[in-house]
Amino acid sequence: MMDEVREFKILRVTEEGRCEVEDVVAREFPFTIILDDQELVTMLCTPKDLKYLAVGFLSSEGLIQNKEEIRKIILDERRGVVRVETEGDRGEATDLIFKRLITSGCGSGASFYRAADTLNQEKVKSEMKVSAGDIFALAKVFQQSSQIYRETHGVHSAALCDNKNILIFTEDIGRHNAIDKIFGRCTLEDIPTNDRMVISSGRISSEVILKIARRNIPIVISKSTPTDLAVDLAIRLGVTLIGFVRGKKMNVYTESWRVIGD
Amino acid sequence: MMDEVREFKILRVTEEGRCEVEDVVAREFPFTIILDDQELVTMLCTPKDLKYLAVGFLSSEGLIQNKEEIRKIILDERRGVVRVETEGDRGEATDLIFKRLITSGCGSGASFYRAADTLNQEKVKSEMKVSAGDIFALAKVFQQSSQIYRETHGVHSAALCDNKNILIFTEDIGRHNAIDKIFGRCTLEDIPTNDRMVISSGRISSEVILKIARRNIPIVISKSTPTDLAVDLAIRLGVTLIGFVRGKKMNVYTESWRVIGD
Repeated sequence: MMDEVREFKILRVTEEGRCEVEDVVAREFPFTIILDDQELVTMLCTPKDLKYLAVGFLSSEGLIQNKEEIRKIILDERRGVVRVETEGDRGEATDLIFKRLITSGCGSGASFYRAADTLNQEKVKSEMKVSAGDIFALAKVFQQSSQIYRETHGVHSAALCDNKNILIFTEDIGRHNAIDKIFGRCTLEDIPTNDRMVISSGRISSEVILKIARRNIPIVISKSTPTDLAVDLAIRLGVTLIGFVRGKKMNVYTESWRVIGD
Repeated sequence: MMDEVREFKILRVTEEGRCEVEDVVAREFPFTIILDDQELVTMLCTPKDLKYLAVGFLSSEGLIQNKEEIRKIILDERRGVVRVETEGDRGEATDLIFKRLITSGCGSGASFYRAADTLNQEKVKSEMKVSAGDIFALAKVFQQSSQIYRETHGVHSAALCDNKNILIFTEDIGRHNAIDKIFGRCTLEDIPTNDRMVISSGRISSEVILKIARRNIPIVISKSTPTDLAVDLAIRLGVTLIGFVRGKKMNVYTESWRVIGD
């Protein structure tokens, strides 16, 4: 088990004066994913649920479809490296992701656009409904669940829920990583995502909607707000997008028929 | 002038009931940078200060060093494309960035690690000091400055300041973009960054410290918290890292000699 936080001696300055105190800071851990002997990426993340993160990332990138394709996962926590070995020849698929990375480019934490991916995505199929009261209750439990956040105020969290319960809860310095950790675990442990909801502490961008829709998840909830492209995409993919959940108030941006009275 | 926000008809749900209201959402604008006829990247951003963003991004990536290298900037706001033409042959430099993107990989909004860049960076040289009172005052003005945030709660902001005043203020859905917009403007308008401070609304990661140090900026301030790698890097590069500024309290993580009494 690796430490997810680190202590530093810092100077605390207030109107009353200044004093040296111990403060706890979220870790930013370089983590390299090697897929079938090819070094794919080094990402910065919270060193927790690293196997889930690796599998979730590969799944989000379209490099693996299901657990059966994975032959072995060798995690070296100390060195920050995971080797994922898959069945069959992935040479082509890996070349493909490299090409896409080149085409779409990338940058220091910037978000990049995948117009083609959104066009090929099918609409979410689900008759799931949820009551406003259940959403308020889940959002409250969600907010109280983050251990690292309470200690550092420096991480995002995400959860997979049904109408009444949080089924999986994850934390990471990156909002996308937290969601990938959920889906990596779902892949490895055969946890179904149909008729489930995702709660995220982060802003809902178009890329989050795309990730959610790929798992056929009909409802996404955030205390933060969405962007306009996220709203457009949620309309097109039939996702119920709920934002700005604070106390007993929320905004339902799309597909509001899924939110019913108590 | 493009719209930075968009209106949607949404369902507002409270304990009192539900009603259809107009809500304002931050835009997420796909923006493509073409450098010397080579398509470099399509990023998602707030459609404001796009020329600054393009130049700041190219500068952060090490593709341009100064204004004199830029021959022409042709911005097509409607299509979301900017063409930056530079002096001389950049074929090699552009190949280099593509190679780096391949090596470091990239993903949907994840952060990626550039160990080599941090090793080559020199220490910040500055005797600048700032009083705790000035920091509290600047942080307050900073927080009140964001128009889009007030409307949407969906964007990050960043500012370049001296001890008493905010000199440049920027907003973007991406925390890195907001900082790049500052530096792009500094490059194009010959605004010096020595003995200046940067305020950011976002979490301070190692990559933010690297960007700040490259401009020889000695102090970075955030209401949010840093990561452990950011603290490590700030120590090594001699940057004063101030976080968790809330009301009249703050944490000084590194190089606290630059923060003096009132």
